[in-house]
Amino acid sequence: MSRRFPLLAGALLCAAASASAVEPAPNGITLPEGYREWQVLAVHHRSDNNTLRAVLGNQAAAKAAREGRTNPWPDGAILGKLVWKAVKHDRWDTALAPGDFVHAEFMVKDSAKYPATGGWGFARWLGKAQKPYGADANFVQECFGCHQPVKDRDFVFTKPAELP
Amino acid sequence: MSRRFPLLAGALLCAAASASAVEPAPNGITLPEGYREWQVLAVHHRSDNNTLRAVLGNQAAAKAAREGRTNPWPDGAILGKLVWKAVKHDRWDTALAPGDFVHAEFMVKDSAKYPATGGWGFARWLGKAQKPYGADANFVQECFGCHQPVKDRDFVFTKPAELP
Repeated sequence: MSRRFPLLAGALLCAAASASAVEPAPNGITLPEGYREWQVLAVHHRSDNNTLRAVLGNQAAAKAAREGRTNPWPDGAILGKLVWKAVKHDRWDTALAPGDFVHAEFMVKDSAKYPATGGWGFARWLGKAQKPYGADANFVQECFGCHQPVKDRDFVFTKPAELP
Repeated sequence: MSRRFPLLAGALLCAAASASAVEPAPNGITLPEGYREWQVLAVHHRSDNNTLRAVLGNQAAAKAAREGRTNPWPDGAILGKLVWKAVKHDRWDTALAPGDFVHAEFMVKDSAKYPATGGWGFARWLGKAQKPYGADANFVQECFGCHQPVKDRDFVFTKPAELP
């Protein structure tokens, strides 16, 4: 029993480590917990890079979307985007379905913390390995630059989808 | 005060009625509560009818999807599909976004209750008005007929998307 204990302890430590092994983004943003359970706000298909996307919102974002408070979005709102390569559905010729997972990316609204980027903190984790995107904290300039065309919509491309 | 009371009571009754005014499907299935908060399992784009779709799962379905128990899906699993007309994103030329809401449809797994249709109960509510689909309970033959090509996958077209 005593000889087995170190092995068991090592196994438990490994299990604990793997549960929280996702590295923070270079700007310090950590992967939001439980984002897979967030409410879906919209879905998109982009033909330029052949991807399907689900846009999710945390509780604050989902509530704001339902109440039309999206310009600006309130502090505390987090938008998440799950992106997959689009592949032809193998049993429905004219349907595209999610293939390989590409990345998960997030916009965290905190006006006080992120004044230089419209009040939003940006972060992205690549692939199933969830590797943080960006060599250093300046990666957000790329994100923010791309979102300039929707500056008048609080820098958010997504309009929450109509739901009854 | 006494003259106003009937009006107030009427207003309250109307508010209460509208909160639960969605009619059951002709086969008796009622609109699942809280489906907008369910976990997203997949997204699809169908070019034959130009729609974008989010496939959601209730807690039992989401757990089964994560654990790979989807052939067959367990009793208690409910799959929901939210369907929108696809429209061109007004700020991103090569992106499609959700336009008008088309319908919400559901598959309810209950092997004992629905043996004639593969263990699944089918239901659909149309548009923002959430009008039940089908003239009578036989409408499920149309649903079940369309799902025959995926009989070997427990009659489900959706493969849960890969997620880290």
